[in-house]
Amino acid sequence: PESKLPKVGTTIFSVMSHLAAQHDAVNLSQGFPDFEGPELMRERVAFYMANGANQYAPMTGAEPLRAAIAEKVQRLYGYSACSEKEVTITSGATEAIFAAISAVVRQGDEVVVFDPAYDCYEPAIELNGGICRHLPLSLPDFSINWDLLKDTLSPRTRMIIVNTPHNPSGATLSRTDLDLLAELIRDTHILLLGDEVYEHIVFDQQPHNSLLCHSELAARSFVVSSFGKTYHTTGWKVGYCIAPEPLTTELRKVHQYLTFSTATPFQLAIADYMQQHPEYTTALPGFYQEKRDLFCQLLQSSSFDFSPTKGTYFQLVDYSRISEMDDVSFARWLTSEKGVAAIPVSVFCEQPVPDMKLVRFCFAKGEQTLHLAGERLSQL
Amino acid sequence: PESKLPKVGTTIFSVMSHLAAQHDAVNLSQGFPDFEGPELMRERVAFYMANGANQYAPMTGAEPLRAAIAEKVQRLYGYSACSEKEVTITSGATEAIFAAISAVVRQGDEVVVFDPAYDCYEPAIELNGGICRHLPLSLPDFSINWDLLKDTLSPRTRMIIVNTPHNPSGATLSRTDLDLLAELIRDTHILLLGDEVYEHIVFDQQPHNSLLCHSELAARSFVVSSFGKTYHTTGWKVGYCIAPEPLTTELRKVHQYLTFSTATPFQLAIADYMQQHPEYTTALPGFYQEKRDLFCQLLQSSSFDFSPTKGTYFQLVDYSRISEMDDVSFARWLTSEKGVAAIPVSVFCEQPVPDMKLVRFCFAKGEQTLHLAGERLSQL
Ligand SMILES: CSCCC(=O)C(=O)O
Ligand SMILES: CSCCC(=O)C(=O)O
Repeated sequence: PESKLPKVGTTIFSVMSHLAAQHDAVNLSQGFPDFEGPELMRERVAFYMANGANQYAPMTGAEPLRAAIAEKVQRLYGYSACSEKEVTITSGATEAIFAAISAVVRQGDEVVVFDPAYDCYEPAIELNGGICRHLPLSLPDFSINWDLLKDTLSPRTRMIIVNTPHNPSGATLSRTDLDLLAELIRDTHILLLGDEVYEHIVFDQQPHNSLLCHSELAARSFVVSSFGKTYHTTGWKVGYCIAPEPLTTELRKVHQYLTFSTATPFQLAIADYMQQHPEYTTALPGFYQEKRDLFCQLLQSSSFDFSPTKGTYFQLVDYSRISEMDDVSFARWLTSEKGVAAIPVSVFCEQPVPDMKLVRFCFAKGEQTLHLAGERLSQL
Repeated sequence: PESKLPKVGTTIFSVMSHLAAQHDAVNLSQGFPDFEGPELMRERVAFYMANGANQYAPMTGAEPLRAAIAEKVQRLYGYSACSEKEVTITSGATEAIFAAISAVVRQGDEVVVFDPAYDCYEPAIELNGGICRHLPLSLPDFSINWDLLKDTLSPRTRMIIVNTPHNPSGATLSRTDLDLLAELIRDTHILLLGDEVYEHIVFDQQPHNSLLCHSELAARSFVVSSFGKTYHTTGWKVGYCIAPEPLTTELRKVHQYLTFSTATPFQLAIADYMQQHPEYTTALPGFYQEKRDLFCQLLQSSSFDFSPTKGTYFQLVDYSRISEMDDVSFARWLTSEKGVAAIPVSVFCEQPVPDMKLVRFCFAKGEQTLHLAGERLSQL
């Protein structure tokens, strides 16, 4: 029989990272930092490994980590999460997203995603027999078209996936957006999945408007985040999901059989670090804003058009003035000929916009890397 | 709407471990060792963390670990696996099992499992719209009833799940069993899922008859194993799946969106250790056989009936001469009143056998723990 996921090929992240390695290009494609997280955190991992924390964590996650998350969302978003019943640790945000979708989406259910959409939503929806309804975000600022959303909702709509700050565009939802969303779904049973893995990377002194800030929305939301993005440890694969108890109950039924539990020493080390350094996340926007500003400044002399990203560690650029290639060809050319790897944006869209000429750069890199990339890109 | 997994409650492993903690009982329920794996392995984790291996591993798994696995299965089972196209690293064997099932089981497909069956198979089958066909293993030796299996197979049968060594009974498949299985499915398209997480824990000088030993079976099998069971690191959550390229292609499409990748420093550390210490797995049966023999000896003076387990780190015992309680009640009583936690076996059976009075003890414990449990149990 044919594939259950006929549309899925190798993810663009693996493809471009591989191509980058092949051509010894500066890899600004797949999103991961080329610098290290806090040394103390690694020390705590070693400590816990040396002190017997090498067996299964509780299925729901290590208690101290769930407590640290509950403390954080209370402090930052004013949301009181019961760490025992509403917080679940997962093997990365990817597992949390897959589990949330699998927990509630059934055969024939519709799920709305906004394009460009991160590539893991649709396969999860399809494997559960759901129907993925793609809505384009409105250019140039990648905002939600509320009328279009309204027209798309139907009695079969089970879930809307919102991603803020948005990958790849960096667009963020405002408090007004949250209110509009609340109004739109008030009289429905539609659930929300908030992919907020870049929650701590929002620039220009703006707040992150988490779904958790909005009690009406939080009451029907799975909110997912990732320690990999926040603590520069994408290879540790620790994420989490916060959801009201009835949703968490269903989520855990899936999580229990998807991975059962997540690496114990990492969980305990992250918990210690969060407790000892709550100021870390406050400093993170400044840390990444410097990188954004440096990268944008390096691109000033190029013919790329862009406006500085509002969040995430990604910068979209328009290459219309440089080339007429489609974005996949341009990204490949940029990698193989110019020595800088990027991610084409059309691969995240069901219906690529014909004149959309955008690629995404990851600026979560050390100054040297950014300068090297800048040198190569500034001549374009 | 009601739950997508209405039958799923909290897994018996969490329930019993929790009860054990509550009553300060010796916890021989959930299967995990109370001793440590090789120190060198932890040192290598620290080394890799200190040396930049904290970002995403390749989606398919770190190359050196896939290579080490390919070397191992060649050496032990005579199976030539292409490490690039046939070996995938997963976040524990649980993820591998979920991904294999999700990769190929569709709405209405039947999957055969043998009861008592490890509890993660059925929810994975159900979430994919499959139908789980439970076949009881034949008592007292938990062997497959081939006639029953033959009668159960139908054009809708998509997969048979075999678990050898078998949890909870420790039963192992013989070379003859593999031949019988091959004969039975020769003219079908039925796939196999081999849950072989206890592959390195087989006693009495017997070999482990992996599906990989049998080329005809290997050609249609997903074979799953776990480093947690082998290296006493259940909390690291690293497992793998070997399958022919077309099956691996489908498996990876799911894995890519389930967890994407698995903890990098653990993968690299395990690879180093495997390469440097291929003799480790050869010594493991002896290590655990001593524990089995000690535990069985300690039970000699009790009224439990048993025959020493052939594999895994579990010992089943019949408590008919001690109590008339059902096994769930007996396991709870044993935990709360006698201070030793065990797993009831009926929870792994769709149709519990009325006069089956069996509980499972995990003997992956230090001598002191085993003696303490022995003291408490020997009086029964
Ligand atoms: C899981 S690899 C992709 C990393 C990422 O989040 C991105 O590059 O957008
Ligand atoms: C995933 S917790 C259960 C551990 C185990 O494999 C068992 O006890 O059988």
